[in-house]
Amino acid sequence: MVHPSKSVESVRVRRVRNGHAERVKDWVTIEEPLEIRLALPGVPQGPGRPGTPPGVESIAVTMRTPGHDFELAAGFLVTEGVVRRREDVRELTYCRSGRGAQEYNIVEVRLRSARGVDLGRLSRNVFTSSSCGICGKASIDAVEVQGCRALPDGTLRIPSQVLIDLPDRLRKAQGDFSRTGGLHGAGLFSAEGELLSIREDVGRHNAVDKVVGEAFLAGGLPLHDTVLVVSGRTSFEILQKAVVAGVPAVVAVGAPSSLAVDLATRFNLTLAGFVRGGGYNLYTGLERVT
Amino acid sequence: MVHPSKSVESVRVRRVRNGHAERVKDWVTIEEPLEIRLALPGVPQGPGRPGTPPGVESIAVTMRTPGHDFELAAGFLVTEGVVRRREDVRELTYCRSGRGAQEYNIVEVRLRSARGVDLGRLSRNVFTSSSCGICGKASIDAVEVQGCRALPDGTLRIPSQVLIDLPDRLRKAQGDFSRTGGLHGAGLFSAEGELLSIREDVGRHNAVDKVVGEAFLAGGLPLHDTVLVVSGRTSFEILQKAVVAGVPAVVAVGAPSSLAVDLATRFNLTLAGFVRGGGYNLYTGLERVT
Repeated sequence: MVHPSKSVESVRVRRVRNGHAERVKDWVTIEEPLEIRLALPGVPQGPGRPGTPPGVESIAVTMRTPGHDFELAAGFLVTEGVVRRREDVRELTYCRSGRGAQEYNIVEVRLRSARGVDLGRLSRNVFTSSSCGICGKASIDAVEVQGCRALPDGTLRIPSQVLIDLPDRLRKAQGDFSRTGGLHGAGLFSAEGELLSIREDVGRHNAVDKVVGEAFLAGGLPLHDTVLVVSGRTSFEILQKAVVAGVPAVVAVGAPSSLAVDLATRFNLTLAGFVRGGGYNLYTGLERVT
Repeated sequence: MVHPSKSVESVRVRRVRNGHAERVKDWVTIEEPLEIRLALPGVPQGPGRPGTPPGVESIAVTMRTPGHDFELAAGFLVTEGVVRRREDVRELTYCRSGRGAQEYNIVEVRLRSARGVDLGRLSRNVFTSSSCGICGKASIDAVEVQGCRALPDGTLRIPSQVLIDLPDRLRKAQGDFSRTGGLHGAGLFSAEGELLSIREDVGRHNAVDKVVGEAFLAGGLPLHDTVLVVSGRTSFEILQKAVVAGVPAVVAVGAPSSLAVDLATRFNLTLAGFVRGGGYNLYTGLERVT
């Protein structure tokens, strides 16, 4: 049985270093599927997955690292645009009807009301717009259709030296990474570089959903006063989640994609990449870095 | 308009190094959606995406780096288990009915016959099995249900020193990476370390689909005599694609997940990780490394 708090496990490996081989115990990041189910009061449900109870809809399966599963489920629903307000969520539970491992691999999200909930978003393809069919611009338009607006210039200002130090602070707070080297980290920081929250996952989008979900469940969205720091690269998907959560600045150890830069431009986000070795590249939102 | 061969574009950045800031031109990896459409002769089609022609089914949208799109589409269909034999594919074309950017963002795969084609695989959730509901073991079982069997021990043997050098050889062959730092690479190598094929993409699963799709279209599956080298980490998804393609050895610069190790064990693959700095960890299939 995989307990939700267990995120690494040991394996036997042959380790080769400097031409010398030895059999040792090592740690790997746990990857397990998580099914997210949604229960909406008074809404007719679709056929769903075989074995899903009546009135409950299976909406997603993601490969994730166990731990903070409720936050992951909540963050997923928020960043996908299915729910928007904390009070819409009545209860999050593990589905305990199963046996063994699956007990902790199914999260059921029970909503208070169907009002304002847009289940269709998950089945509609958000990348299409009537103006250009399918292209990067349509993908960005879809974020606007989701209800997101350009972020205000706001008061968040990040001193350049704080920005430079953020990835190191994230890495030091990533407890499990040092053991496995296989976990993406996502952290929320204040503009002064104070760590507010950190989550890890084998999937970088999951790590971001976990920090966003935690803030959402605590009633802390939008995150206008925080900086999102990620251990890897930035893609459309990561920036889209930041926009939905209202985070005005994204700082990454790795490179951004073209769509990440375009999305940051459109929604007035500050985007930094290659933040390492005492330097960085600033792609958008230059006025927020002082 | 994004031409299929264009995989990087220039952006203006503020580059900060050693406390000195300058405005420079830099390169980022292009990320654009690709829609994969399937045309099956004589098979009733579902409702599909709005705007899809009758008789054509939109089966997936993936965020990818343009280039080798036909190989990506073919590799996706193969590794998802939708098609199995080269002769099933009659034609791959860009959908030229659109305007501007979308011309090269839709690939239509026309099959010769519907025989042996399992469209249902894409809508069924492959992670469920009756024995344990949803868990890592069920995910692995699903690969077996897809028709995959454990790989034969075969004759592939990789000298330890060749293995150590493989990631460097991949990196040197990754032309675009040096410009953007934002592309995952996947390469097929002989056991002697000879580069057979390399593809890059903003998504690591896409890079693998591209090399698998190239081999598939050339009638080269299964890839029993080759080593798959990837620039990042290895997850369930990457190993699953290797199993479907019949690749007996996967070599990664980064860490494997628990499910990657489990899948490699079940299907008798050799899995190496942390191949860098002159050493590596060998998780499974030790007998193939000499």
